[in-house]
Amino acid sequence: MAVKTGKQYTDSLRKIKRNSYILGQKVDDIVDHPINRPAVNAIAESYEIANINDMKAFAAPSSKLCNGPVNRYNALSESVDDMLSRGEMERTVGYRTAVGCPRSTGYDAINAVYSIAYEVDQKYKTPYLERFTRWLKRVQENDLAISGAMTDVKGDREKRPSQQADPDMYLHIVERKPAGVVVRGAKAHQTGAVNCHEHLVMPTRGMNEAEKDYAICFSVPVDAPGLYHIYGRQPSDTRKLESGGSIDVGNSRFGGCETLMVFDDVFVPWEQVYICGENEYTWPLVNRFAIGHRASYGLAGGGVGDVAIGLVVAMAEANGVAHDKIIWDKIADLIICCQTLYGLGLSAMLKGKPTTSGIYFPDYVLGGVAKYNATTLPFQMLRITQDICGGLVATMPGEVDLRHEVIGKYIEKYLRGAAQVPTEHRMRLVRLIECMSLGPLSADLLTMGLHGAGSPYAQKMMILGDYAERIPGLRDLALYHAGIRDKIS
Amino acid sequence: MAVKTGKQYTDSLRKIKRNSYILGQKVDDIVDHPINRPAVNAIAESYEIANINDMKAFAAPSSKLCNGPVNRYNALSESVDDMLSRGEMERTVGYRTAVGCPRSTGYDAINAVYSIAYEVDQKYKTPYLERFTRWLKRVQENDLAISGAMTDVKGDREKRPSQQADPDMYLHIVERKPAGVVVRGAKAHQTGAVNCHEHLVMPTRGMNEAEKDYAICFSVPVDAPGLYHIYGRQPSDTRKLESGGSIDVGNSRFGGCETLMVFDDVFVPWEQVYICGENEYTWPLVNRFAIGHRASYGLAGGGVGDVAIGLVVAMAEANGVAHDKIIWDKIADLIICCQTLYGLGLSAMLKGKPTTSGIYFPDYVLGGVAKYNATTLPFQMLRITQDICGGLVATMPGEVDLRHEVIGKYIEKYLRGAAQVPTEHRMRLVRLIECMSLGPLSADLLTMGLHGAGSPYAQKMMILGDYAERIPGLRDLALYHAGIRDKIS
Amino acid sequence: MAVKTGKQYTDSLRKIKRNSYILGQKVDDIVDHPINRPAVNAIAESYEIANINDMKAFAAPSSKLCNGPVNRYNALSESVDDMLSRGEMERTVGYRTAVGCPRSTGYDAINAVYSIAYEVDQKYKTPYLERFTRWLKRVQENDLAISGAMTDVKGDREKRPSQQADPDMYLHIVERKPAGVVVRGAKAHQTGAVNCHEHLVMPTRGMNEAEKDYAICFSVPVDAPGLYHIYGRQPSDTRKLESGGSIDVGNSRFGGCETLMVFDDVFVPWEQVYICGENEYTWPLVNRFAIGHRASYGLAGGGVGDVAIGLVVAMAEANGVAHDKIIWDKIADLIICCQTLYGLGLSAMLKGKPTTSGIYFPDYVLGGVAKYNATTLPFQMLRITQDICGGLVATMPGEVDLRHEVIGKYIEKYLRGAAQVPTEHRMRLVRLIECMSLGPLSADLLTMGLHGAGSPYAQKMMILGDYAERIPGLRDLALYHAGIRDKIS
Amino acid sequence: MAVKTGKQYTDSLRKIKRNSYILGQKVDDIVDHPINRPAVNAIAESYEIANINDMKAFAAPSSKLCNGPVNRYNALSESVDDMLSRGEMERTVGYRTAVGCPRSTGYDAINAVYSIAYEVDQKYKTPYLERFTRWLKRVQENDLAISGAMTDVKGDREKRPSQQADPDMYLHIVERKPAGVVVRGAKAHQTGAVNCHEHLVMPTRGMNEAEKDYAICFSVPVDAPGLYHIYGRQPSDTRKLESGGSIDVGNSRFGGCETLMVFDDVFVPWEQVYICGENEYTWPLVNRFAIGHRASYGLAGGGVGDVAIGLVVAMAEANGVAHDKIIWDKIADLIICCQTLYGLGLSAMLKGKPTTSGIYFPDYVLGGVAKYNATTLPFQMLRITQDICGGLVATMPGEVDLRHEVIGKYIEKYLRGAAQVPTEHRMRLVRLIECMSLGPLSADLLTMGLHGAGSPYAQKMMILGDYAERIPGLRDLALYHAGIRDKIS
Repeated sequence: MAVKTGKQYTDSLRKIKRNSYILGQKVDDIVDHPINRPAVNAIAESYEIANINDMKAFAAPSSKLCNGPVNRYNALSESVDDMLSRGEMERTVGYRTAVGCPRSTGYDAINAVYSIAYEVDQKYKTPYLERFTRWLKRVQENDLAISGAMTDVKGDREKRPSQQADPDMYLHIVERKPAGVVVRGAKAHQTGAVNCHEHLVMPTRGMNEAEKDYAICFSVPVDAPGLYHIYGRQPSDTRKLESGGSIDVGNSRFGGCETLMVFDDVFVPWEQVYICGENEYTWPLVNRFAIGHRASYGLAGGGVGDVAIGLVVAMAEANGVAHDKIIWDKIADLIICCQTLYGLGLSAMLKGKPTTSGIYFPDYVLGGVAKYNATTLPFQMLRITQDICGGLVATMPGEVDLRHEVIGKYIEKYLRGAAQVPTEHRMRLVRLIECMSLGPLSADLLTMGLHGAGSPYAQKMMILGDYAERIPGLRDLALYHAGIRDKIS
Repeated sequence: MAVKTGKQYTDSLRKIKRNSYILGQKVDDIVDHPINRPAVNAIAESYEIANINDMKAFAAPSSKLCNGPVNRYNALSESVDDMLSRGEMERTVGYRTAVGCPRSTGYDAINAVYSIAYEVDQKYKTPYLERFTRWLKRVQENDLAISGAMTDVKGDREKRPSQQADPDMYLHIVERKPAGVVVRGAKAHQTGAVNCHEHLVMPTRGMNEAEKDYAICFSVPVDAPGLYHIYGRQPSDTRKLESGGSIDVGNSRFGGCETLMVFDDVFVPWEQVYICGENEYTWPLVNRFAIGHRASYGLAGGGVGDVAIGLVVAMAEANGVAHDKIIWDKIADLIICCQTLYGLGLSAMLKGKPTTSGIYFPDYVLGGVAKYNATTLPFQMLRITQDICGGLVATMPGEVDLRHEVIGKYIEKYLRGAAQVPTEHRMRLVRLIECMSLGPLSADLLTMGLHGAGSPYAQKMMILGDYAERIPGLRDLALYHAGIRDKIS
Repeated sequence: MAVKTGKQYTDSLRKIKRNSYILGQKVDDIVDHPINRPAVNAIAESYEIANINDMKAFAAPSSKLCNGPVNRYNALSESVDDMLSRGEMERTVGYRTAVGCPRSTGYDAINAVYSIAYEVDQKYKTPYLERFTRWLKRVQENDLAISGAMTDVKGDREKRPSQQADPDMYLHIVERKPAGVVVRGAKAHQTGAVNCHEHLVMPTRGMNEAEKDYAICFSVPVDAPGLYHIYGRQPSDTRKLESGGSIDVGNSRFGGCETLMVFDDVFVPWEQVYICGENEYTWPLVNRFAIGHRASYGLAGGGVGDVAIGLVVAMAEANGVAHDKIIWDKIADLIICCQTLYGLGLSAMLKGKPTTSGIYFPDYVLGGVAKYNATTLPFQMLRITQDICGGLVATMPGEVDLRHEVIGKYIEKYLRGAAQVPTEHRMRLVRLIECMSLGPLSADLLTMGLHGAGSPYAQKMMILGDYAERIPGLRDLALYHAGIRDKIS
Repeated sequence: MAVKTGKQYTDSLRKIKRNSYILGQKVDDIVDHPINRPAVNAIAESYEIANINDMKAFAAPSSKLCNGPVNRYNALSESVDDMLSRGEMERTVGYRTAVGCPRSTGYDAINAVYSIAYEVDQKYKTPYLERFTRWLKRVQENDLAISGAMTDVKGDREKRPSQQADPDMYLHIVERKPAGVVVRGAKAHQTGAVNCHEHLVMPTRGMNEAEKDYAICFSVPVDAPGLYHIYGRQPSDTRKLESGGSIDVGNSRFGGCETLMVFDDVFVPWEQVYICGENEYTWPLVNRFAIGHRASYGLAGGGVGDVAIGLVVAMAEANGVAHDKIIWDKIADLIICCQTLYGLGLSAMLKGKPTTSGIYFPDYVLGGVAKYNATTLPFQMLRITQDICGGLVATMPGEVDLRHEVIGKYIEKYLRGAAQVPTEHRMRLVRLIECMSLGPLSADLLTMGLHGAGSPYAQKMMILGDYAERIPGLRDLALYHAGIRDKIS
């Protein structure tokens, strides 16, 4: 069956032995490690959604490749409706998990590689699309979780890949063999990659003639020999290891994780190679992956934002200020931030266009603008959320204090706000706010919101690049309105 | 022919004798009065657009009522595509005139009244929709310019209509006659109303049982006896009266105008009355008019924003700074502002839904968020535009100085920037920036952007109102993520 | 000797047995507990500064009470210069510890209580000032660390102290005895209080006639029977407990801590009581404490901001982008934020005025404005800092990974940026940014910046209150400029 | 007598025949020309203030040069108190005129030139300071209004003065004669220069060895042969020419004016030359002039901001919304903007330092930060002001309509808000808001606030330059807190 459940996904992970390190320890069971489990659950939710009846319309589209429903995250983007449905998928995941879904990168990688493989084949008569389609069919049929891997570690930012003192600062081919290639390098900031089945690996920037060995695109299973996954630390990560409670971690069900992936001479058979040396296609590939990802930030942000809105409402009630006009003025600010992200994401999908292969991508300018707003508005939302919550987010004792035989009664007594809300509930709300703004989820919601799919300045460069063709016409338009030209060109 | 040209529109205006006052003078020829002409031209452009071949798809839809193409501004909104096309109409008008179009209010009024008349008829067996449809058919067939009139002068804001010391602070029925009603009151801030053929008049707020005489909706020709149009002053308005040049006014072709409309006991025959006393429908009527209008602000702003972008590019070239990275960083900021408005407008249209009559309205929350952004981003755009332009916008001598026999040579010499741009061109660019940020157009672009379709706080109230039904679900969602509830409800 | 060293302070702490709980455990040695030690060090630094020769001018003023130098934090504020010196003390502490100093609350409490005790005595012939002066002399002579304790837990925010279901939601007298009073209640968010020698306790708001038992001000040693200190959790707090390294905690030397202080029927002898029932003085007392504290936020922020500026410069070098114009544009933004805080703090001190006792307080409006900016600018600074740093702040593996026998070489290799910066140094910079923006220090720098000395809306209310007397004059001024009045009143 | 009255100043202007052009017409009587009169009045107010008893302390200091009181604007800056008093002068002028004072540039020029002349003399044994002191003594004794003239027209911004196609784009010496020099060029954006008695002319940037002819500093009377003053146009400037009323202009008493000054081969005797060819001193000269001016923006802004605060309060009353919590929340925002400007200006003065000549200048970083805030906050204040005011600012009919025999009664009736405020008063308030935000004063308050004393990016460059020496120390500080260095350097 092509659409699996969360449990089927989780069980399938257990069968894979990967090279994974969490806080310096090699981890055999990635699923049940307490630090990682919430991140597994977040992906599992993307499987569950495809099994909920009134969500199937957007979450489980039919695929021509396998003649049946597949998870949206493994589907091709063949229309504006597909893009809008993908957007609804992101919003729903954000809403139901309070964090984004790593499979989002898989979706963008699948569609970017598909469309580029098509174009390379057209020019060079290469067999890339056929290979890729075989792989994708298997992915869809087995409902695999795919992570799109792009960001190299980059070394000295002032130097191109071919100029780096250490040539491995960007992933590249170190050996070509009859059966395939050997690659070396590392991919940083790989959201949730360790919990996927396979990676779809792409270059991180446009490569020039001297960098053909860096112009490589391929898929690889997570347990490929030589591939290491090193877990990144996140705020308060070890609270998940603490025994005896679920409050202090904030959101005990769901979370994110970021991994440094090291390719220490990983062998990739030709069957898994989808670009190899056609460097002029690296920039379009990066751009197509990125625009899908950028546009989707707004939509996921809309879902997570809804959690924040509900949270401050609940907190205002717990504090006894739910009737204050000023509080609602701030809640309106929060809604405006959240819906600005959501609306901009939608607009990018709506104005998307197809490439020659028939794959659709969001509008570049609107997608970039959605993402740019996603680098600023979450910080405003964090401030508003903490503002309404009050100082406890920085000062509240822990669950062990609440349960303590001596001081527990003081916590119970003095941390109560409005009478109808139990102290423990109020504490849980405070912890969730801490979790989202300064705690485990904050790294994903704020920092990765800032830098994911490109840092703020990268966004601006891409927006300017995508607007460039309109600029001469707009300059003439201004000359027209200034009375210098007679007609709108 | 149902789709007229700009010239046909202009000629038709000349035949109407209306009670119009500009700067204290009764004006017979509203078309050729220099202060008003740019505002006439802006409306004329909305006629022209419907005659441009590659714009007809969105600008001249087919109407069932008159079996042929009509101007978009007189069309019913019967699908999401209709709303998106209307959005494209707004963007195009903004782009081509650097200001919004007054007929926009007509479109929103037509659709709001149609949908409400339908619902009132369903409940009360009234004949409103039939009357209204007769009127609309005539409007479409003659391609009339309609202004939607809503905002009452309101008097003391702390008091309801029925509590005002002067009962005329809100327009109301003062006499009922066998053939119709007599109304008294005034509508403020009526953008471009004086240059339309007819007004479609609505209440400005929800009315209660005691205010049934205020629950009146009707159409009236601009030359109705007892109806006065009093022109508002705008920055630098009299520059349009200065002889001998076109530079100082900034945009000499297009402009806006705002009118105070006074109804001094105007008689309205029953045939033109579409609601009369059904006060429970006033709030939905206001809301539907407003949401259409709010959503459209973003889209018009996208068009006007494009003018601003072209303008700063041209100015940067004239100043010799077009290669500066920092300048382009600021241009990126400008694009982000402009496209945020545009994208949010689009999203509101995309997520719009039909009412029982089949008339579609934009999504209330997204439309409100689009409008709220339109109350803040234009001020940022103003600042960026002036920043890139330089201090001349506040200090530049006039065209008469440039043409002067003694000092003209100094102006010519010293106001030149980069060699390839003639001094006069640079001066024209500066004047257009002044026009849009501190001059004739600024009142419409900034102040009316702030207050049109409701002031910022009104926007927030409406957003909160429209979000209200989601709030309990979101609070429960937060409780779920905080570990207080077990399931997403 | 009245000015002690950091070591003397630390040693003195060890002699005190207090009721302290950290993460649910009763802690005997508060000094050497790894979670608390950085907070002890931050206070110790305030002692050290008073011993550095070129800082003594502001850090160790001469006191009339004990005829010699005392630590600035225990000094009376008797001139504008005193206030400016106190400001310099705050900036220096922020600069040298990257966090604020808890003794700051002691300073503000000492001066507020002194000035109010003077005024109450004038009116009621009470002996408060004499008592207080005896206490203060001892504090100065022994260079005690004092915490000012104000914020009650408040319960239901919609209800006054006397209306709460649980009367203990605000600290109050539960019994009057011949030798003193017994108090009950709790003080929340007590920054660093656990590491002080004594608390100076004040009411948290203006009390009315029915709340005379809540109008109590007194000092109490930290080891008073019935007094509990319960440590609040902060982001990544347990990283300080991890063995084998100093990187992951970010700033391993300095930190803050927040405590919930519970008064479970604590007996306070009359000699330590400085107000008791004179409820009309509670509001001025709160206001004087708060204004000192508000103004000082800007100055401390200036010092911490300097750390952030240096940090992004170092990070830009480590990333190889230190020559990029855009990076420096962002660094300029950071300097502007930081110096806005600093400058506003200075201005509040400069415009301060004396009360009848001779004690000076900062200007209320400027101090409030400094604090209000401190509720917004740090969030902008956080965003800029993370922007320049890059995504690693959310994804970087830990020190244990760097030291690991298998994967350590990958970390070393792939996390290197510019060649001249060792990988470990780059990692330390990233961790310090995480520490300040999402980690251990963030709770104090962001959340307590937001809520300390009053939440944003409280700041606005106080600013409006303090501006109120100017409003009629300003309204008349506007009428003058509008041509309605003939003269400036 | 050294301190003159406003009337004495005004009378003295009438005796000077200058080459002045307003809107293309040569103007003999610059005082009574309706367009210029408000700008004359604003300067006159600076004379009046020095005669008001309780303002003399800051407005009329004693001068050693002429042994008696002089106007602050002509005084030397010899202490921090002098700088603070100058700041109070700026605030007072802003408060009393709703616009800044052009003599502010004179003050900054006097002090910058004095201090540089001293240093040049020290190095080259030149007679500049002696000459300058003779001139200054005369200026003080006759209480002349001096304008400091700096900003050249600059031509192509990408090219240095010596690289311009037209060498006159920066003012320079075109001939050296035995008795003096002949200069040619133009100074743009000269605030109020036409209404002063003399100009003190300085270079606009650092000049290099090839640009010694551009390194010239001198004074010149306004009626020097070959010197032209060409009036810049400002929004709604000709409303001042309209007969029959005072409402529409907004502020009918006070205003600003900007002039393009052309030096068409003006002869300057050696006695009036204070630098001539010492190009290495041009950058410090520019910097000292600029920092004085930058710091003063904040203080003037504080005064003008008070007018805005009073205005929105009056408007809220006229609209009947003076009791609304949300309105006061916005007024608090306005106060925060206004006092942020004021406080930052104060802090720059407080932290100022002397140069070797004994002349004090404000702190460069704080002054730059004050000015940078003055390029952003006024735009926020404009938005808040218009927000509270309502849409009338863009749509209100004029005074001639109010006085009209037919329509006047409608204006009277329908533009009334709260009953107790006469319609005319409400209209005057609206017009003053228009005047300050989109009308005559807006060019000075917004655009010149943005660009005066350097555009925003210039401010950032100067702030970075002035912070540069601290940067290495701050980087080391960050390394210390990151655990990389052991000590604070």
